[in-house]
Amino acid sequence: MDKVKPRILPGFMELLPEEQISFNKMYDTIKRVYESFGFVPQDTPVIELSEVLLAKAGGETEKQIYRFNKGDNDLSLRFDLTVPLARYVAGHFNELTFPFKRYQMNKVFRGERPQKGRFREFYQCDIDVIGDGELDLIYDAEMPAVIYNVFKELDFGSFTIRLNNRKVLNGFFSSLGLKDNIADILRVIDKLEKIGRNNVKEELSQMGISDERIETILDFIAIKGLNDEVLDRLTALDVSDELFKEGLSELKKVVEYLRGFGVEEEYFMIDLTIARGLDYYTGTVYETMLNDYPSMGSVCSGGRYDNLTEYYTDKKLPGIGISIGLTRLYYQLCSEGVITPSAKTVAKCLILPMGDVMETALLAAKTLRDNNIPCDVYYQSKGMKAKMKYANRLGVRYVAIIGEDEVRNGEVNLKDMQTGEQIAVKTEEIYKYIK
Amino acid sequence: MDKVKPRILPGFMELLPEEQISFNKMYDTIKRVYESFGFVPQDTPVIELSEVLLAKAGGETEKQIYRFNKGDNDLSLRFDLTVPLARYVAGHFNELTFPFKRYQMNKVFRGERPQKGRFREFYQCDIDVIGDGELDLIYDAEMPAVIYNVFKELDFGSFTIRLNNRKVLNGFFSSLGLKDNIADILRVIDKLEKIGRNNVKEELSQMGISDERIETILDFIAIKGLNDEVLDRLTALDVSDELFKEGLSELKKVVEYLRGFGVEEEYFMIDLTIARGLDYYTGTVYETMLNDYPSMGSVCSGGRYDNLTEYYTDKKLPGIGISIGLTRLYYQLCSEGVITPSAKTVAKCLILPMGDVMETALLAAKTLRDNNIPCDVYYQSKGMKAKMKYANRLGVRYVAIIGEDEVRNGEVNLKDMQTGEQIAVKTEEIYKYIK
Repeated sequence: MDKVKPRILPGFMELLPEEQISFNKMYDTIKRVYESFGFVPQDTPVIELSEVLLAKAGGETEKQIYRFNKGDNDLSLRFDLTVPLARYVAGHFNELTFPFKRYQMNKVFRGERPQKGRFREFYQCDIDVIGDGELDLIYDAEMPAVIYNVFKELDFGSFTIRLNNRKVLNGFFSSLGLKDNIADILRVIDKLEKIGRNNVKEELSQMGISDERIETILDFIAIKGLNDEVLDRLTALDVSDELFKEGLSELKKVVEYLRGFGVEEEYFMIDLTIARGLDYYTGTVYETMLNDYPSMGSVCSGGRYDNLTEYYTDKKLPGIGISIGLTRLYYQLCSEGVITPSAKTVAKCLILPMGDVMETALLAAKTLRDNNIPCDVYYQSKGMKAKMKYANRLGVRYVAIIGEDEVRNGEVNLKDMQTGEQIAVKTEEIYKYIK
Repeated sequence: MDKVKPRILPGFMELLPEEQISFNKMYDTIKRVYESFGFVPQDTPVIELSEVLLAKAGGETEKQIYRFNKGDNDLSLRFDLTVPLARYVAGHFNELTFPFKRYQMNKVFRGERPQKGRFREFYQCDIDVIGDGELDLIYDAEMPAVIYNVFKELDFGSFTIRLNNRKVLNGFFSSLGLKDNIADILRVIDKLEKIGRNNVKEELSQMGISDERIETILDFIAIKGLNDEVLDRLTALDVSDELFKEGLSELKKVVEYLRGFGVEEEYFMIDLTIARGLDYYTGTVYETMLNDYPSMGSVCSGGRYDNLTEYYTDKKLPGIGISIGLTRLYYQLCSEGVITPSAKTVAKCLILPMGDVMETALLAAKTLRDNNIPCDVYYQSKGMKAKMKYANRLGVRYVAIIGEDEVRNGEVNLKDMQTGEQIAVKTEEIYKYIK
């Protein structure tokens, strides 16, 4: 028979067991922190009606969609978790309790041209809070508080949550008489780190903005320092625009609340260059940088939006959310050598039966499981050498060797593969010796 | 603006928060048990190349596939987790350690005509063990041992794991000179419970099998009783066919091992009517019934196969696996009223700040989280009544009320919403009072 080559598509991540185990550890950590803040799980369909999912989409996004017909239906695979959230909240409005706090950590699909570190199928880990009519500003601080706890737990070194407020930016540009150019200006500013100050100047100039104003803009977004210093300098600008004042007041309160949440000062920073490309943000916006790996870019971004559900309902449902692109983050951390997957097993202990001792081996395994210790038994009939080789390949921490002598003594021989220590322990007490 | 109706496709399950929470509880239980037996996580792509995924498929299955083109690629969504496993093991053969034990709990997609209790997108929760060249028979007992532990933990009442061995069936039919009809006979037998004895007789007769042999077949599959009785009766048949003898010997050993695994006798039963429709099974086969809900049919099925990877590799990679159709099971349990989702929150405690007490409220929340107790804070500025209404709607177990008086005393007012009990506790000790 001709064999089919067992390959997968480029741009799709498929992990080996040791990688999947370390990936899941990150996934579980994020999930645990999300739940610790009271976010409830959500799991929307992978396949949606194109008419519904693409109500808002257009341009670049639409081109990337996996879209197809099945029977009479025009279908699309979800390309993010935000549009399904909007559709869900609008559709289930009467069944939900507001503020509605949910997380969704699932795969999304984008048929981009594949390139290094870009995936066509990848996990997003999103949290959002949606209010009915209104949503208190303190949620704008809860988001970075969640980010703070997530990245503290993930433990990839120091990080900085950079925050800004769209109202501050919009209000400032309005005050310069540039109200009609705001979207374009933000897009250019967002690229500052990538393209540099001179190119930003050039692009702003091409938009017909005077050199004087460009200098004012650049001076403005260059305001840096301790959070209170930045707030003081913004206050000192004495901009009369109402939106600016509102944004500044929000920014001040968010900073104050963040301290209340116990977020350490060195982990967050007002950064006026953060604008976020997406057009639906209307207030606080965030980006998060791992300080040791700046080339990764933002690993967790988001912000506040007022009108996400407007395509589906007349109700006013303001929200705020953040997203971690887990697949990309995992890939980058592996590339940087921050994550080095090793253990090929989730078992804490591998039992190696030698001779006619299966009954005792199964009993030992049951004892471990009954005490919440995942374990495995090597059932294949092989010699001791082959069995130890298997244990070594798996990278399991403990090995319990059970021979006929041990069975007679009601014992197992427990070996710590990390320290090399080996002790004889009573079979029914084996779980006590495993950390 | 015209609104788009926020609907999803029929045949797709989307859950409300309280449902999702109870669904995830089942999911997590299954996952925990799978891992406790040393199965490692696997997560294959949703989208695969049609050429690879459909190497084996045909007929009914192929018609149900979500298949489409994107660029130059002919793509398909996975329709089960077994074919991706075969592709994975063949493709990563040199990087895996055998026996390879993996679980995958993910969505699969089948564009069936939608009907009650049938889903087009649903979770399968699979475990499989793949051996390199050989796979010890004890794994045939480990599978039902895992099922036993899963359904014990899920706690939906008593259940019966019914087991059989294809070799016993095939050998028996061979001994009757019906070797060429085995596949058809098995298909008919498999329907016994659905269509009844007379229809089975009729169908077998149409296949040209003599009445005498039909009686022999029906007597054979009617052999029932305690496991040891069935094994004794099968032995007493004294069938000379070698395959039959091999199958019977396997069945005996599997029963013996199952006892070694601590599976209680009343939870498993040899049932000679179990054949499993799928043609790739070659040895032990299983079905699992919830005894209180027989109309649900089998909730966990599987078996041993020798040649699953043959489309991708020449290597001999025998395996054994089981699958739980979680979406369908969840749906059925809800329909039967076995599951009645209630809590709309994963938080154990909801903090209700009254007045200017946010600092203390945030501190109380942090104390709870630091002690691994998920909690939520109601930040919206509403009156006490609205806040308690929110707490009641969520169905949260504990509510911590913090007013200005409490702050002065360094206390919070903790109310157990289940018992109605209310006590004042020190803010920093709040976690000690939450179960």
